[in-house]
Amino acid sequence: MAKRNPGPGPGRLYLVGTGPGAAEHLTPAARTAIESADCLIGYRTYLELLPPELRGGKEIIASEMMKEVARGRQALELAEQGRVVALISGGDPGIYAMAGLVFELARERGSPAIIEVVPGIAALNACAARLGAPLMHDFAAVSLSDLLTPWELIEKRLQAAAVADFVTVIYNPQSKRRTWQLARAREIFLEERAPETPVGIVTAASRPDEKITLTTLADLEGQEVGMQSTVIIGNSQSYCWNNLLITPRGYGNKYNLESNGA
Amino acid sequence: MAKRNPGPGPGRLYLVGTGPGAAEHLTPAARTAIESADCLIGYRTYLELLPPELRGGKEIIASEMMKEVARGRQALELAEQGRVVALISGGDPGIYAMAGLVFELARERGSPAIIEVVPGIAALNACAARLGAPLMHDFAAVSLSDLLTPWELIEKRLQAAAVADFVTVIYNPQSKRRTWQLARAREIFLEERAPETPVGIVTAASRPDEKITLTTLADLEGQEVGMQSTVIIGNSQSYCWNNLLITPRGYGNKYNLESNGA
Repeated sequence: MAKRNPGPGPGRLYLVGTGPGAAEHLTPAARTAIESADCLIGYRTYLELLPPELRGGKEIIASEMMKEVARGRQALELAEQGRVVALISGGDPGIYAMAGLVFELARERGSPAIIEVVPGIAALNACAARLGAPLMHDFAAVSLSDLLTPWELIEKRLQAAAVADFVTVIYNPQSKRRTWQLARAREIFLEERAPETPVGIVTAASRPDEKITLTTLADLEGQEVGMQSTVIIGNSQSYCWNNLLITPRGYGNKYNLESNGA
Repeated sequence: MAKRNPGPGPGRLYLVGTGPGAAEHLTPAARTAIESADCLIGYRTYLELLPPELRGGKEIIASEMMKEVARGRQALELAEQGRVVALISGGDPGIYAMAGLVFELARERGSPAIIEVVPGIAALNACAARLGAPLMHDFAAVSLSDLLTPWELIEKRLQAAAVADFVTVIYNPQSKRRTWQLARAREIFLEERAPETPVGIVTAASRPDEKITLTTLADLEGQEVGMQSTVIIGNSQSYCWNNLLITPRGYGNKYNLESNGA
């Protein structure tokens, strides 16, 4: 049975991240939010990855990719009518995802809906786990999508990350339309970091077609990288062992396995 | 009943993150790993946060803080003896946490144990969700702990993050011994970013004593920040609305709510 918010006031909108892949990374908090909703809205693929028992008895509004604004607005409208809505996305809605857009739309509308973000396992958490332990030290996340961000600023960030020896997680590295940006990022890193710096590529993390590649900055060109890929470039201390990408917790003479630093 | 790996070969070591707080962010994958283990090892506080049914029938090895190396080594030794071990930590073991240390120790020992990282909801995911949507654009994570990292490098990273307009997540911002570093970080950001840049402080995210503070770079000094706090500094576009910290998905004239960019 679809539940309806009984009161006359505004309802509630949960922004829920299902993590990578299917249900194994769906947190209890996310599950509870979905169960409490009478309407699920989201990109079709993410809705279809949900366990069937979470979809039953609810209104399901599946939309296509690239309709984020319409989707966010519709979710808000339904919540404003008193519904309990869960807007479903993969990963974490709080990292390069729907949460910001929904708040921007809510502010624009002066929406009275109660909005809650339920965090999820983001691509960076999932890909790091599959690669070993690349994110043991300071890191930067940079998206190569220049649809909403000037490319000059993206280059500036890549340079800053390279110069300051950040481990760097690259979102949206490549697609059919985004063809040269990753090669340019590689050039920028090669100005600051050794060609043998390890690089991990994780495609479709935790899904049946998952693919993990360990390579180096030198050999990054020509690797298979797509829409579902995240690329992690190690820092100057990162190394490969046993087909894993590992970044030590510290630096050179400050670091000693016998010590017990935090 | 404690399960034992029946074979004569090495066992398995799961590095499991329980997320923030109690069980509401413990993923099914983390739960399955814990259930399959015959021995749980970890810092006492995290073990005590586990649901009781996950602790029953297992050997429990609780250790004190600051004993990470001994804890990691013991976990490996048990797995090498054929045990199935879950090394439990809060947050995500793959982000500034135990995973890297365990792999370093395993490499040093030439350990044959099978090691698997199970990702969790890290402080940055949890704190971002509680603040609204600060991580909608490129961000950097910087730890202010200089126990294993030269302070000069930490300053260099803060400067790079400030100059390149990264949203910045500050780990280990302050403690009894770490008293001046956050003030210095604030100075560095004030050289590049406006005094009214919004800053969020989340302490003990998702726990009963959770505290959320929204302030600005100008007013950051004097705020209550401790061992359990994470600080998120907005980028030049971030703003506060409805007691939330929001970073837009894009920049100025590239950005339009009517458009449908990815």
